Amino acid sequence: MTMFDLDEILKSRRDTRHFTDDEVPDSVIEKALQAGHWAPSVGLTDATKYYLIKSTEIKKAIKELFLDYDKKATNQTDNEQQKSQYQALKLEAIEEASLGLVICYDRSVLNNFTIGTVGSNEAIKFSAVCAAQNIWLSLTEQGYSMGWVSILNYYEFKKLLGLPENIEPLGYFCVGKPATNYENQPMLQQLNWKQKLEKPFVEEISKLHLNNEVTPVELGGKMVTDFDLSEALQYKINNKTKPAGSLGMLEVLAKQIGMVFQTLEPKIIQPNMVIFAADHGIANHGVSAYPQDVTRQMVINFLEGGAAINVFCKQHNIQLSIVDSGVNYDFSTNTNLISAKIAKGTQSFLHGAAMSATELDLCFAKGSKIVKAIAETGSNCIGFGEMGIGNTSTASVLMSVILGLPIEDCVGKGTGVDDEKLLFKNEILRKVIENYKGSDDLDSKLAYFGGFEIFQMAGGMIEAYNNNMLILVDGFICSIAFLIAFKKNPGIIQNAIFCHQSAEQAHMKLLNYLNAKSILNLNLRLGEGTGCAVAFPIIQSAVAFLNEMASFESAGVSKK
Amino acid sequence: MTMFDLDEILKSRRDTRHFTDDEVPDSVIEKALQAGHWAPSVGLTDATKYYLIKSTEIKKAIKELFLDYDKKATNQTDNEQQKSQYQALKLEAIEEASLGLVICYDRSVLNNFTIGTVGSNEAIKFSAVCAAQNIWLSLTEQGYSMGWVSILNYYEFKKLLGLPENIEPLGYFCVGKPATNYENQPMLQQLNWKQKLEKPFVEEISKLHLNNEVTPVELGGKMVTDFDLSEALQYKINNKTKPAGSLGMLEVLAKQIGMVFQTLEPKIIQPNMVIFAADHGIANHGVSAYPQDVTRQMVINFLEGGAAINVFCKQHNIQLSIVDSGVNYDFSTNTNLISAKIAKGTQSFLHGAAMSATELDLCFAKGSKIVKAIAETGSNCIGFGEMGIGNTSTASVLMSVILGLPIEDCVGKGTGVDDEKLLFKNEILRKVIENYKGSDDLDSKLAYFGGFEIFQMAGGMIEAYNNNMLILVDGFICSIAFLIAFKKNPGIIQNAIFCHQSAEQAHMKLLNYLNAKSILNLNLRLGEGTGCAVAFPIIQSAVAFLNEMASFESAGVSKK
Repeated sequence: MTMFDLDEILKSRRDTRHFTDDEVPDSVIEKALQAGHWAPSVGLTDATKYYLIKSTEIKKAIKELFLDYDKKATNQTDNEQQKSQYQALKLEAIEEASLGLVICYDRSVLNNFTIGTVGSNEAIKFSAVCAAQNIWLSLTEQGYSMGWVSILNYYEFKKLLGLPENIEPLGYFCVGKPATNYENQPMLQQLNWKQKLEKPFVEEISKLHLNNEVTPVELGGKMVTDFDLSEALQYKINNKTKPAGSLGMLEVLAKQIGMVFQTLEPKIIQPNMVIFAADHGIANHGVSAYPQDVTRQMVINFLEGGAAINVFCKQHNIQLSIVDSGVNYDFSTNTNLISAKIAKGTQSFLHGAAMSATELDLCFAKGSKIVKAIAETGSNCIGFGEMGIGNTSTASVLMSVILGLPIEDCVGKGTGVDDEKLLFKNEILRKVIENYKGSDDLDSKLAYFGGFEIFQMAGGMIEAYNNNMLILVDGFICSIAFLIAFKKNPGIIQNAIFCHQSAEQAHMKLLNYLNAKSILNLNLRLGEGTGCAVAFPIIQSAVAFLNEMASFESAGVSKK
Repeated sequence: MTMFDLDEILKSRRDTRHFTDDEVPDSVIEKALQAGHWAPSVGLTDATKYYLIKSTEIKKAIKELFLDYDKKATNQTDNEQQKSQYQALKLEAIEEASLGLVICYDRSVLNNFTIGTVGSNEAIKFSAVCAAQNIWLSLTEQGYSMGWVSILNYYEFKKLLGLPENIEPLGYFCVGKPATNYENQPMLQQLNWKQKLEKPFVEEISKLHLNNEVTPVELGGKMVTDFDLSEALQYKINNKTKPAGSLGMLEVLAKQIGMVFQTLEPKIIQPNMVIFAADHGIANHGVSAYPQDVTRQMVINFLEGGAAINVFCKQHNIQLSIVDSGVNYDFSTNTNLISAKIAKGTQSFLHGAAMSATELDLCFAKGSKIVKAIAETGSNCIGFGEMGIGNTSTASVLMSVILGLPIEDCVGKGTGVDDEKLLFKNEILRKVIENYKGSDDLDSKLAYFGGFEIFQMAGGMIEAYNNNMLILVDGFICSIAFLIAFKKNPGIIQNAIFCHQSAEQAHMKLLNYLNAKSILNLNLRLGEGTGCAVAFPIIQSAVAFLNEMASFESAGVSKK
């Protein structure tokens, strides 16, 4: 069967799950891969790579991976009819198809200057998908077919095939001679799972939508000058049945919290922890020990409850919210994920600005909006956490340019960089700062060196202050967000509780600059707001002793 | 021009940036979009959407977006030759091409159960890319062409077009009649930017990469050697979804607790706090800021629930027991007060022994008995606290004689002594030590310089160790009790958790001697076991992360 009409080929192409026993001749696959090679390749990077699988053993292992995730998929529907209908579907032919093909793209081309990837580095991936479609069409024309298996744990899949870190598979493709053409329609339609639309969805856009974005939050200040309350709180603390000052930092916290809530009987209501997640262009330059994709993976981990912050929030009944501030990934709409995406990661500031002035404003506005919504639920205490591969680099550079310190004083190992990489990180960040030709004002520097999640946190902190909330500050990156908020509104420090001093040396310097003392010093360097959550019960202890302890008078204990 | 051979079409497809003025007839674009519609659609979701742009005004606005990001791209290279070569490239034809097409995918289909998206929801996006390629091929066949513009700020782009949140564009596609075929090669190759590879990259994978990470053996209650368990615990800790070591001291605690309880899944059961209270003869010589009667008053306060330790134990559900180890007062029989009275306070050791050898033995025996009873209730975690006016003096002298340190290194302000009184305290305690004429063995010194509550704690700690319990050590005085227990049985340190470093300078020296690091450093100097109680949730955090966090494998997160 050979077809000579493009439409006929396009129309006959099927996602095939039923194959005959016929082998795929080498000439057929060669011709098909050549067709793939004629697909677009962004910036002419030739990043698309093909791997062939013939081994029965490997196919068997991949089939097992499929079965594992297929079971997971089955459990995603509660509708029993849908479930059994789904289970009846044959969705792959991994073991039957004579040839396995793994179409991949090589992320590492992004390490060099690559045309067409400034808006989104997904263009690399898209080129590989175009190649897949070409291969499909070529196989169809030659009387063969293909089935795209995407129901796989990609992490395990890569491991199984021994693919290097930088090689990302689109899926596993079963190639062979089709045993059926499904009556020339998609199999899911043939089996009445769903009807394909008769016609494509097309619409003309004829109206230009002008930018009518709301301007960022007002940076209002407030005065906390209730001298009487301050004295009354100190009197209450000193009259508890203990030597004056003997509860150390708990006494300092109790007084601060009383002042923030303007009461002698403060109570923490509905504490919230918000994790802002975003990607950083600088991560493509080898400053982190982890690949950028870990940001996405960890967001999923947060949503599924498996991360450290989930455990600690659950331990202390802290409400946890996850924000997509700009992860380089399209998450499915999930009620538990707050979308505040600015873009799919910042640009690398190695050679240009991380973001535009508009994006900077948007970060503050969106961060503020999120915290406002939380304040409106009645919460009076909010912890800030972050996730973003590469964000210690961003934070270090921001610290250096805001405080005018040498970059060496601001750099740490991040989450697991070794000594050699640390030198490299120092070097590249020094270059980043040298390359800056912009003006000296804060906002210009912020846009140039920024990170979406860091600015959303800063915007959120200012909003928390305006709503008389306690602001729990986590480690180094969160403290940089605080520094920015502080530069914009110094009064905010009255509401801030520094929860832990991270193992990053720069953090100690930053806390010294802010004249702040942290509650914990446990050598934590995880981020995610874990320092806030672990320190939270100690903050509660401060409130508890103030409210619940007996006074010398009430207990009949002799005062000094 | 119409082609009838697929390879010819595939090979002629060009990413076009040079168009003639010809209009694109409706029939051509309709046929092309129908070709797109024949592309795969994962789960038959029909998520691909097309938007047409004919408005000059919109094209102009999009062109500006392009220029903005193109400039940004230009700045990403330092190589001046590359920069000017890049600037000379024509990368779009937004305003010239007669038709604009925006190919999008609708993320919202993921809100419903969608086949093929469990491994990665990118399949939705990939279906749209396959459609783009089909459209490209159809246009090529019909004598038209397309150019994919991806150099855009996608966020602004969506805003400009008024696309809803859930609609994600792949880019802007310029459609028209090509003005050139670039000599039938990619334009970037024609202009010598880069050569396209002759052949695609293809490789066969024939070897299965097995997961070669060691999996720990299931313990299931059977005895394992400490070495195996230690390795298995470390493996479990390292495989949690966090950089290795990033939970700092929590990781150290988790491993220690697993070792003490001999399990990979430790659980703290019925935590107890025991306060041992006694009076000290030395208190009669003006070494304390408080009268001796405060010991009695505070015991009453403990029993009535008004002290700091009551508040913190209540906060964390810790069972609290109060022991009369030798208060100078006859308490009425109270079910909540454990009577283990040795005598009504020790004798002053200014001129003689504080207690007899028999009383010393009795202290150890009674302390041990109390802890044994608690172990028998099923508790596996015990905190030690104390109350006794004058007991910092006792503790300082004991430290000095046990460690052979000058008394100045061992003295602190206790609970509220001022500078003048501190000099006096130093003076009198030096005299105490000088007066000692007894033998040099430990027990002789203990009996001479002792305190009832301190030795009951020491005896209790040894008993706790023998029952595989966690031993929570509070501040300075409690650590002196630990030092005595440690001198009698050094293995006990494996079970000890040092909860806080007190504000007493001597405490830091003592912790250094024991090579111990405390959890908290909050400037507490209250005693009563308050440091243990305040630190307790952090110990629970260590257990919680070990038991509840996801592993890299289970969460599908990439390991370094």
